[in-house]
Amino acid sequence: MATHKVKLLPTEKEIEVPTGTLISEAIQNANLEFAQPCGGQGRCGRCAVILEGTGARRRSTIRLSADDIEAGYALACQAVIEGDVQVTIPEQEQVARRLVTDKSAKKVEIPFPYDPESMQTVRSFQITLDVPTLDDNRDDVSRLETKLSTLGYPSIDIPLPSLRKLGNVLRESNWSPWIILETDQQDAQNARLIDLKPEPIKPLGLAIDIGTTTVTTYLVDLESGEVIANAAEYNNQISHGEDVISRIIFAKKGEGLDILGDRVRATIDTLIERIHRRTGTLAEDIHKVTISGNTTMIHLFMKIPPESIRLTPYIPIVNHPVQYLASDLELNVHPLASVDCLPGVASYVGADITAGVLACGMTETEELTLFIDVGTNGETVLGTQDWMVTCACSAGPAFEGAGVVDGMRATLGAIEEVWVHSQTFEPSYRVIGEVAPKGICGSGLISLLAELFVTGVIDRSGNVKLDLDTPRVRQGSHGPEYVIAWGEETDSGKDIVITKVDVENLMRAKAAIYAGFTVLASSVGLDLSEVQRVLVGGSFGQYINVEKAIQIGLLPDLPWDRFNFLGNTSVLGAYMALLSKSAREQVRDIAQKMTYIELSADNEFFNAFTAALFLPHTEINRFPSVVEVWDKQS
Amino acid sequence: MATHKVKLLPTEKEIEVPTGTLISEAIQNANLEFAQPCGGQGRCGRCAVILEGTGARRRSTIRLSADDIEAGYALACQAVIEGDVQVTIPEQEQVARRLVTDKSAKKVEIPFPYDPESMQTVRSFQITLDVPTLDDNRDDVSRLETKLSTLGYPSIDIPLPSLRKLGNVLRESNWSPWIILETDQQDAQNARLIDLKPEPIKPLGLAIDIGTTTVTTYLVDLESGEVIANAAEYNNQISHGEDVISRIIFAKKGEGLDILGDRVRATIDTLIERIHRRTGTLAEDIHKVTISGNTTMIHLFMKIPPESIRLTPYIPIVNHPVQYLASDLELNVHPLASVDCLPGVASYVGADITAGVLACGMTETEELTLFIDVGTNGETVLGTQDWMVTCACSAGPAFEGAGVVDGMRATLGAIEEVWVHSQTFEPSYRVIGEVAPKGICGSGLISLLAELFVTGVIDRSGNVKLDLDTPRVRQGSHGPEYVIAWGEETDSGKDIVITKVDVENLMRAKAAIYAGFTVLASSVGLDLSEVQRVLVGGSFGQYINVEKAIQIGLLPDLPWDRFNFLGNTSVLGAYMALLSKSAREQVRDIAQKMTYIELSADNEFFNAFTAALFLPHTEINRFPSVVEVWDKQS
Repeated sequence: MATHKVKLLPTEKEIEVPTGTLISEAIQNANLEFAQPCGGQGRCGRCAVILEGTGARRRSTIRLSADDIEAGYALACQAVIEGDVQVTIPEQEQVARRLVTDKSAKKVEIPFPYDPESMQTVRSFQITLDVPTLDDNRDDVSRLETKLSTLGYPSIDIPLPSLRKLGNVLRESNWSPWIILETDQQDAQNARLIDLKPEPIKPLGLAIDIGTTTVTTYLVDLESGEVIANAAEYNNQISHGEDVISRIIFAKKGEGLDILGDRVRATIDTLIERIHRRTGTLAEDIHKVTISGNTTMIHLFMKIPPESIRLTPYIPIVNHPVQYLASDLELNVHPLASVDCLPGVASYVGADITAGVLACGMTETEELTLFIDVGTNGETVLGTQDWMVTCACSAGPAFEGAGVVDGMRATLGAIEEVWVHSQTFEPSYRVIGEVAPKGICGSGLISLLAELFVTGVIDRSGNVKLDLDTPRVRQGSHGPEYVIAWGEETDSGKDIVITKVDVENLMRAKAAIYAGFTVLASSVGLDLSEVQRVLVGGSFGQYINVEKAIQIGLLPDLPWDRFNFLGNTSVLGAYMALLSKSAREQVRDIAQKMTYIELSADNEFFNAFTAALFLPHTEINRFPSVVEVWDKQS
Repeated sequence: MATHKVKLLPTEKEIEVPTGTLISEAIQNANLEFAQPCGGQGRCGRCAVILEGTGARRRSTIRLSADDIEAGYALACQAVIEGDVQVTIPEQEQVARRLVTDKSAKKVEIPFPYDPESMQTVRSFQITLDVPTLDDNRDDVSRLETKLSTLGYPSIDIPLPSLRKLGNVLRESNWSPWIILETDQQDAQNARLIDLKPEPIKPLGLAIDIGTTTVTTYLVDLESGEVIANAAEYNNQISHGEDVISRIIFAKKGEGLDILGDRVRATIDTLIERIHRRTGTLAEDIHKVTISGNTTMIHLFMKIPPESIRLTPYIPIVNHPVQYLASDLELNVHPLASVDCLPGVASYVGADITAGVLACGMTETEELTLFIDVGTNGETVLGTQDWMVTCACSAGPAFEGAGVVDGMRATLGAIEEVWVHSQTFEPSYRVIGEVAPKGICGSGLISLLAELFVTGVIDRSGNVKLDLDTPRVRQGSHGPEYVIAWGEETDSGKDIVITKVDVENLMRAKAAIYAGFTVLASSVGLDLSEVQRVLVGGSFGQYINVEKAIQIGLLPDLPWDRFNFLGNTSVLGAYMALLSKSAREQVRDIAQKMTYIELSADNEFFNAFTAALFLPHTEINRFPSVVEVWDKQS
């Protein structure tokens, strides 16, 4: 049998192997450490290497995009050596998942060609006034107003703090101060004097996404449009409840609302302080703030009692707050900065979704698009540039790790991806921070559920097959369960398991979300298979493995290239609205255009939910790709 | 000689006197105590009695109005008995002058027919909203906005504090809350939600005049238009300077501006607390505030540095502040009450003058009117409904008791009126509070100066005639002086005197004011004798004796019936602007219509001032009535 030279980079090792050897085998033959989390089944995609030369043939391109292949990538477990080849082994991920926007995060691109003159409401420039005399003894305000009128601002609102410093600054600057104005969103002739100084003023803005779990901020140069710095941090409110419902309940007790409102401010303060250390920008240099977040987070930030959100008929106090001043909101930026909370649609479809719809671009295409924020509430939008329907389904917090015995948030020690061997039923897993595992987070649970289903550890109803020949399945104190990690491997020394009850909770969660899609599509007389793009927002979304999510029936079974994982679309939408008046108008239009469908009052939803309580679904023909894999395994 | 029966009431004493006896002599014959401060010269008017029957003839009706005569009044020293007569001696005034608006002050009349519907910007009413359901799940704000739109308020601004309580109040009130709105001054379709409650809300307003010396407040029922209570108190800023200039200087030092701003707030707090004790009204029940005051007082209240007011070219920071919220101004009323500082014209013609012009009604007549606020700055307005010119002359604080050896403010122990006997040169005086005198206040000084001049104690240049046969004139340590009260009569035990230097200061003050009149009249080509009405505003004004003021050349020599003393026109103007949108518009129009003449840059003013530095004036023919009296006496 012919042998072929395989050169392995970066080690420069060379070995010879016979035709038909897998690259993964060649690497192992060379005694190099090389992880294959799924056991070489071509499912995890973690063994990708870069090929040079034509000596290897890809048996499967699962997990590889056209771009990847173009760049030479192949899965080591799926590539057969048929000639000489040079293989570069990328440094395998040092995965210590960080909050996406942390210090090391990559630069945020300006989302559209930015023209501050036509787009921005906040601007700074120098003006020169006539010097007063006995013959021209107009008061300072009239003098300023006259000048600004000639510059195209016939109506100026001078807030008290600006009025109080006006006289001194005019004189210190020799009647040539720098001013910073905010024009009205609708009417650029109405302007508000945010500040004035004898020296230049740089206009800066802050986009904030107040997530239930994470608060994300972008500091933006309003002249160039660039993100100067970004930072993210867990929402300090978490200690008073992990999900919105428990926060709403906490807000009702005593000073609860004030405490929660102050906690999110403290989180924002921390982020601004972190940005300050990196850039020197002070809180009072921030002249404009745009905020997105779900309806409860916006209510809590504004210290508006959110109680009615959780009680039938689920009424928010306000969907579209007007702009208030930072000083009124006690937000520690420039006291006269406007704070613009983006509009929501309903109690459970908030500004994070309208901002996400703006950011994902679905309003600019005729393609039928499904936008999903997978999370506790499974907010979903279906539509095109012309129409949109939306709903939120109470998926519950299972995907956030709650209601699952060993569930946890996606922090250090969380198992975030799992592969199960189809013959041995032995799992491999990846842990955030590469430490001993403490539990399983949302993406890990999706991955685990799919693997257990595909490998036949559980059946379509979620029952654990106790008769399998492996110690991993057993009757536990909570009923049947599967052991992902033995006590000797774990942080606590106890086994990490998934129980039948956990599986049922997860299935209810995925069924609720999928049922939401079904009801939306049916409400407009369409079928989910007609969806041309699926856009997944939310920082949780970007860690979801699309294949696994389809396998459990969480996402509809569409070609993978129709899926896009967009990360935090909420902060991106806030950033766009911060930059551009017309983007801001678009968010308003999006909120107004969306038809909200209240699922709790909808019998069709209940039917769709029940139908989705199987793996992947009662109507198995909805998931042809899953049938194919499942058939192969079983 | 015939005798006549004189019956004296309320004592019921009867005596017989011969024809030609004066009533004052008859009263003295009856051994009744009866004060004649001017010594029976018919000048003080204090010996007025009420006659019944036709047995007495009035020799002079000086000091008596037509109404007085109609009511039977006669001066006892000027009424000759020619038949039987019954004389009622009124209880002679127990003069303890109080701040005009104190507890015992008389009711303030509503200044015009009040129609809140068309005039008032603040109104309260109950509304009933649709109850939300799963099918009508609009947010609370939309629900409220829709309702108010049907009631004629298509655009509602909901400030943050109102938004924060909205949800709870709607539900507590069973969706039928009471709301209190303020509509826009210009556009009644724009309204602001001041508050909402489950129970009725009474709309109340507060008119405030911030005087340099006294702060005056009217609490107003905005539904009936009535003044429910009023109160006045010395401006707490006084301890940091008696006049505006010394306050401006104090404001520049360290925390001076904040201290002065806080002090006037403390004064207002005191007044509101006093009103609260009387009426039960709490500070937070006050939903609208209108403020007048001179330009410096408005700057200090708003905590705007006033320094440029006192430095050439005398520029205020702002003449016409927009409305700010009470919370922004840290004024202790309802936090969302609008606080409207009325507009001024220039550094030394402030909102007190524009409010005064509104209150005095000169904008509603074609008569040529002179409106004067006699005080430190002698603000004067000349005009008709069609035009107005205005100026302020630095009279200095002599009439407020400063720059005069024994000068003092019009408080307890101040000599407020003086009469000098034309033969003996012995004075009589009246003291505020009827206590031992401490000094002389402004009205006392005007009265004293006039008496000294008319009786020849001083000459037309203000020189004290030391050769008169009375110990009252003497060479004192400060030069020639006249003794008003010997040490044995006074509070301190020291003589109370007026020196030649004092007289010169007073003459400069009156000359400055009169020169202002002259310049105003000349600026429009008119003569002061053409003035048809002289309206004197300011609380000091109401204590001025017109005869005396003319005699010293402070006021122009016009028939007395052309003079009207209006009291505090500044607070009255603020009250009118608080009641009525169109009155508020009028104040703005008044401020815009006034042509301000800067006297410090005016050579004509200097000439007019020099000419007025005599008693009553260099051009004696300007004061024919004074010549007549003076001739009689000398």
